[in-house]
Amino acid sequence: MNEQPLSLHEIPAGVHSAADYARLAAEVMDPALFAYLEGGSGPGRTAAENLAAFANLGVVPQPLRRVSGGHTRCVLNGQQRPHPIMLAPVGSQALFHADAERASAAAAQATDTCFIASTMASLSLEDVAAVAGPDRWFQLYFQPDRQVTRDIVRRAETAGYTGLVVTVDTPIQLPSHRALEAGFVPPSEMANLRDYPKPPAQDLEPGESEILCGMMRGAPTFGDIDWLAQETGLPLWVKGILHPEDARELVTRGVSGIIVSNHGGRALDGAPASVSAISAVRASVGDRFPLMLDSGIRSGADVFKAIAGGADAVLVGRLQAYALSVAGALGVAHMIKLLRQEMEACMALSGCATLADVRDTDLVPLGAGR
Amino acid sequence: MNEQPLSLHEIPAGVHSAADYARLAAEVMDPALFAYLEGGSGPGRTAAENLAAFANLGVVPQPLRRVSGGHTRCVLNGQQRPHPIMLAPVGSQALFHADAERASAAAAQATDTCFIASTMASLSLEDVAAVAGPDRWFQLYFQPDRQVTRDIVRRAETAGYTGLVVTVDTPIQLPSHRALEAGFVPPSEMANLRDYPKPPAQDLEPGESEILCGMMRGAPTFGDIDWLAQETGLPLWVKGILHPEDARELVTRGVSGIIVSNHGGRALDGAPASVSAISAVRASVGDRFPLMLDSGIRSGADVFKAIAGGADAVLVGRLQAYALSVAGALGVAHMIKLLRQEMEACMALSGCATLADVRDTDLVPLGAGR
Amino acid sequence: MNEQPLSLHEIPAGVHSAADYARLAAEVMDPALFAYLEGGSGPGRTAAENLAAFANLGVVPQPLRRVSGGHTRCVLNGQQRPHPIMLAPVGSQALFHADAERASAAAAQATDTCFIASTMASLSLEDVAAVAGPDRWFQLYFQPDRQVTRDIVRRAETAGYTGLVVTVDTPIQLPSHRALEAGFVPPSEMANLRDYPKPPAQDLEPGESEILCGMMRGAPTFGDIDWLAQETGLPLWVKGILHPEDARELVTRGVSGIIVSNHGGRALDGAPASVSAISAVRASVGDRFPLMLDSGIRSGADVFKAIAGGADAVLVGRLQAYALSVAGALGVAHMIKLLRQEMEACMALSGCATLADVRDTDLVPLGAGR
Amino acid sequence: MNEQPLSLHEIPAGVHSAADYARLAAEVMDPALFAYLEGGSGPGRTAAENLAAFANLGVVPQPLRRVSGGHTRCVLNGQQRPHPIMLAPVGSQALFHADAERASAAAAQATDTCFIASTMASLSLEDVAAVAGPDRWFQLYFQPDRQVTRDIVRRAETAGYTGLVVTVDTPIQLPSHRALEAGFVPPSEMANLRDYPKPPAQDLEPGESEILCGMMRGAPTFGDIDWLAQETGLPLWVKGILHPEDARELVTRGVSGIIVSNHGGRALDGAPASVSAISAVRASVGDRFPLMLDSGIRSGADVFKAIAGGADAVLVGRLQAYALSVAGALGVAHMIKLLRQEMEACMALSGCATLADVRDTDLVPLGAGR
Repeated sequence: MNEQPLSLHEIPAGVHSAADYARLAAEVMDPALFAYLEGGSGPGRTAAENLAAFANLGVVPQPLRRVSGGHTRCVLNGQQRPHPIMLAPVGSQALFHADAERASAAAAQATDTCFIASTMASLSLEDVAAVAGPDRWFQLYFQPDRQVTRDIVRRAETAGYTGLVVTVDTPIQLPSHRALEAGFVPPSEMANLRDYPKPPAQDLEPGESEILCGMMRGAPTFGDIDWLAQETGLPLWVKGILHPEDARELVTRGVSGIIVSNHGGRALDGAPASVSAISAVRASVGDRFPLMLDSGIRSGADVFKAIAGGADAVLVGRLQAYALSVAGALGVAHMIKLLRQEMEACMALSGCATLADVRDTDLVPLGAGR
Repeated sequence: MNEQPLSLHEIPAGVHSAADYARLAAEVMDPALFAYLEGGSGPGRTAAENLAAFANLGVVPQPLRRVSGGHTRCVLNGQQRPHPIMLAPVGSQALFHADAERASAAAAQATDTCFIASTMASLSLEDVAAVAGPDRWFQLYFQPDRQVTRDIVRRAETAGYTGLVVTVDTPIQLPSHRALEAGFVPPSEMANLRDYPKPPAQDLEPGESEILCGMMRGAPTFGDIDWLAQETGLPLWVKGILHPEDARELVTRGVSGIIVSNHGGRALDGAPASVSAISAVRASVGDRFPLMLDSGIRSGADVFKAIAGGADAVLVGRLQAYALSVAGALGVAHMIKLLRQEMEACMALSGCATLADVRDTDLVPLGAGR
Repeated sequence: MNEQPLSLHEIPAGVHSAADYARLAAEVMDPALFAYLEGGSGPGRTAAENLAAFANLGVVPQPLRRVSGGHTRCVLNGQQRPHPIMLAPVGSQALFHADAERASAAAAQATDTCFIASTMASLSLEDVAAVAGPDRWFQLYFQPDRQVTRDIVRRAETAGYTGLVVTVDTPIQLPSHRALEAGFVPPSEMANLRDYPKPPAQDLEPGESEILCGMMRGAPTFGDIDWLAQETGLPLWVKGILHPEDARELVTRGVSGIIVSNHGGRALDGAPASVSAISAVRASVGDRFPLMLDSGIRSGADVFKAIAGGADAVLVGRLQAYALSVAGALGVAHMIKLLRQEMEACMALSGCATLADVRDTDLVPLGAGR
Repeated sequence: MNEQPLSLHEIPAGVHSAADYARLAAEVMDPALFAYLEGGSGPGRTAAENLAAFANLGVVPQPLRRVSGGHTRCVLNGQQRPHPIMLAPVGSQALFHADAERASAAAAQATDTCFIASTMASLSLEDVAAVAGPDRWFQLYFQPDRQVTRDIVRRAETAGYTGLVVTVDTPIQLPSHRALEAGFVPPSEMANLRDYPKPPAQDLEPGESEILCGMMRGAPTFGDIDWLAQETGLPLWVKGILHPEDARELVTRGVSGIIVSNHGGRALDGAPASVSAISAVRASVGDRFPLMLDSGIRSGADVFKAIAGGADAVLVGRLQAYALSVAGALGVAHMIKLLRQEMEACMALSGCATLADVRDTDLVPLGAGR
């Protein structure tokens, strides 16, 4: 139950496309916060590449095919959904709007969209569950203490989350140069973690690397994925995979799905764009294994391209935060509606009546001669 | 008979090339209108690609071949024309000049150019016919009500149009971000359509997509092309094809010709440049099937490249509107003259005496090493 | 004998490289004249490509090879030259300096450089011959009247020119957009042509193309090259060839050499860079046929790359005019000296003791990953 | 013994990455000196290419691999080092900081980093030896007089240097256009050379090239490498090799290692980026021959990419001078620490526990579609 009423801002004039929320956010957000949100790790090469890779993929229209009666339904975890867009786990949403995850979860429910609550959310997973619709998943970061990780999973199960997304690509994270220059200070306390004891300081032998031997000691490995899969009955998705070998390895270990992602350029700077990597991942896992994609989606055309490249569905992170910043719950719901319309327009003009048709569409390079 | 005299503006100083009309139009047009004209759908990726693709194609000169006695004649619909340039169907020309289609049609007649009147013209097709020369075609958009479509075709036949261009690539259209930001409001009433009843509101089942099931319900399909071909005795050209499979399909259905076009980037944003797509289309329809191209032509060198890529002729849309805005009928006629001269100069320097020689010319990539 | 003393300007401070003359010329020249000099035909795509193509070619250094005792000698028309740089035919040099061709010819003589006098020179070929050194060639444009062409050739032979360069790539020429916008008006009377009668106006049949049937009527063809080769005993070089087929054709017709050139981007805009075209031309004419290159050379490294690509020697046009504008005869001589030093430095660092070694050097693409 | 105390500046606020030292140096350094430091030979094409080539290489993350317990140790000259980063020989360090090589050598010692003293150092090699740690190598330029070269080698051996790096890529050097325009005047007297007689002026035969026959007379050749290898018992590394043939030749001549380098773009302008060249060099010398790389490293990710490309270790030049300029010895030490952290983060996120794993990592192109 959300005790404070959701603030339903007006949708501002001048929002005609999902990308307009990014443009407006740049105008209305605190510059340091915007720098933090927009910036990728380090110099941000991968964050920029995510956008460029989508821009440089083209679709050959096929306007005379019958699409009337088409739809955008997809099935994930055995559940049919009306559209293939999810709200990616985005932490600390109180930075973007006073309603924080209350707003984005409400927007998800209003638009038949799965909401994925972050371990790093401003609200505890229980508080999110109280306001979110039934289609909610929980995103997990492995904690240094295995008991703590287990406890968080139990809490998510108890709170009625129906899917578990484990993010594996950021055991360490280099800050964004852009955010540092803007002077942004990220929040330190996390609602989901505040009742657990602090992990003990790590002892290093002389000469041992603080990073490789210290910070990475508790980093998740394939073995931890096995452990987690046995710990929970929830469908388990692994987020942050770009290498075909790793994807194949995870298939053999029985996970429910994989999210091809470079964490929006916030993990390894220099990683390729997700949409550049997905074809090889799709080829390595076979046609039917569940794959999602995030990183760089700013329009419904990008959703189309992600699916044509091999994804079954997509997650949107930054757009969610931009829309939330600009217009609260209403903004997020509107952004999802615009994404859907843009994707459907792309389907309509390229002769795709269903997402299966989209998957069968060949993308072509744009700007190759430049 | 046009009752108000055609305003024959002076050709402004500083117009030395067809592209100069684009440059001058940017200076003299209302900024919002210019934004509308120049912008492509959505972010305008394809509109930009159209220009870049032409710029990145090169021609190897062959100066010592004899071209004297050459010409630029071509045959379309069994009719010989002195040059391969047509005026593309451009709607709402009253936006650009008080004389509207009167001016462009007069310019076409004065330059032995085929004028293609748009369904969306500011003047009714009958009014255009009264002022246009005999070489006039009509461009058709399928209407939601088949009877209305049939009636428009009958009117075009009665009014003496000698060709029918059916545009198939914009059953729906996403507006240009640029035009939206500039605050442009497009005209709503169309002279050709004002006497027909408004189409009834469309009923959707719960959960049906407004786009895929609503707007696209009346979108033309291959079957509609068959119907149209039977309805009319006019040569039927299909405009808005980029995919080789669709082109081949249309050949089997007996259309008279195909116009390879992405609607100047105003249809599916993300579509490849027409000139990048034409070689594959040409290969799929064989050497002799009539093909035209539009989208992105700003110079006679571009006309040359379109033909070298596989087109028999080209249509110019934006350049027409630019010249019309800058200098009315005289501007359009002058623009066509400049295009012809530029194309002939390109032929002269590359050893092409005829358009057949142009078709045999290999294009090379420019800027590939960059 | 030049009756007015050559003005030997000081070499201005800040000239450390041949390219510095281009930079300084932009500062000191009349802007309209500079626009004319720098601009290529039409939008200038090829002029820009000439520079980009050189910039995007790389050389792998080989510093430990012995180059001591090396030299830059080459043999052209059976005559040994100390270096492979010539002054390209540049017309109307009075535009650039009061001394006009007197200055550039003197600079050529002072630096053991062949001077090629233009048909369009400010001074008559006889006046140039009076001030130039013995190493002078004459550049010929075919004239509409064959008798006039013959007469010019006779005059050049009589005046002691030892080579004939016939330029074939500009029977017509589209002006530079940039020069037009800058308002440049080119000179109309040419010293070499002033005593000939004006060619009669050309009659065109109705509907005939002014360009293809009019202007191109007198354009040189392969047959005219045959005629010219029989008319003169001078070594005959054809300038303005980029297509391998045309090069091979000229070899069979017995010309002395070919100059691979796009006229510095002043002929067919859209032509590839000379340095991009030369490898295919070299392959088509065999290893030993004399080839030169011009278009885009701004440094000794460019000279190196042209030779590595397949040229025996190069011509410099714009750099000549820049240096002439900035510092008269002394500037041109200094520019040649800098080009030589830069070329020799490139040879030294890449292990080339002779131009034959340069010809054997493989170029690599730079910026390919960008 | 350094008689004046090392100035241990504070690390300035705003340094979060090694690249920040470059950014800050641009703000705090004398503009002419910065132009000199940043500029490459001539127009600086290669200097720019060095940065672009690293930026356009990507790494596919592999986050679920176990890296805990990993390290960055490597073995060079039979000696184990904790990390693969060395301080490149940078001359005239008094330009950058009053402490000159005292500061950088101290920083090297404090961070277990090999310091390579330059022939062109501000301090004599004996003075550097007095303040540097035991892990110090000496960089040699061949001198015109073989006796002088021998004497310098003897002095380096006597002063306890444990490795010899002979730089071969700059027997001549074209100055940077950027530095010339900024008016930078390089120092002329060198501490290591001031007690030797000036080399006699070189006699040239008439017509001999000043560069090829004069300056290059004393340039080192493969034969000189043989001579040097016999002269000294120190491990001998050759710096400035990019061509696979030259690398193979040096392997057969028994040198200890090769440094793939284009001298930071300060030798042959137009040379490819070191990181673009290293794969072919590695292939030509086999998997186990010692290779290092310099030129263009601005981050730990770049170090990772250099090693993935085939290097065993890297040298940093400009970053050293930037950090020295900004914050003296402390800055240099801090810069090395940041480079190590950035490299280890890259290893952690790409599943590399050791440098051998890095060497086995495939790099992918970024921005290829642009």
